[in-house]
Amino acid sequence: MIVNNLKPPYYAVIFSTITEDNLEGYFETAQKMEVLAKLQKGYLGIESARNEIGITVSYWQTLEDIVAWKNNLEHTEARNLGRVKWYKQYQLRICKVEREYGFSK
Amino acid sequence: MIVNNLKPPYYAVIFSTITEDNLEGYFETAQKMEVLAKLQKGYLGIESARNEIGITVSYWQTLEDIVAWKNNLEHTEARNLGRVKWYKQYQLRICKVEREYGFSK
Repeated sequence: MIVNNLKPPYYAVIFSTITEDNLEGYFETAQKMEVLAKLQKGYLGIESARNEIGITVSYWQTLEDIVAWKNNLEHTEARNLGRVKWYKQYQLRICKVEREYGFSK
Repeated sequence: MIVNNLKPPYYAVIFSTITEDNLEGYFETAQKMEVLAKLQKGYLGIESARNEIGITVSYWQTLEDIVAWKNNLEHTEARNLGRVKWYKQYQLRICKVEREYGFSK
């Protein structure tokens, strides 16, 4: 659930969202996109949490891998649907992970 | 709730957590730390979501601002308490935000 096997440098996409009340079709599509993301070149992992807002962070080897995933046709269609139907607001940030610390009991 | 007024480059700290069942004192301390973080030099904003895991992303002007906040005494005490009492596992990532896209209805 928490991705803890990576070594910087690599890339993170932070996707912060506020959704509409009617989320018909959303969870199926989100699930499908997560399965599809895992098949992409350079995919390293994903973490996701939601209450008032949603935050999904996906991890990638390179910037080029992120661009290729952005341009994936099914992903593009899902994103377009998301803007029309499910999202009130989102912010997407592309980041280079420079340092990392972990803790586990 | 979603931070959407920033211009890259700046820094993000992604803090992903799994907590213990007994969270006595946790929410008070988390709230106190959020108030304290907002008073620090270079603080730009925070986003937070929780269900099975928690993800808190705080945004900062520079790496030096992040190190100064890490070394803040009250924050250090809260972190130590967190490791002893509240966290089963966490991962903390320091990232440079390079690109950003927003959408709002």
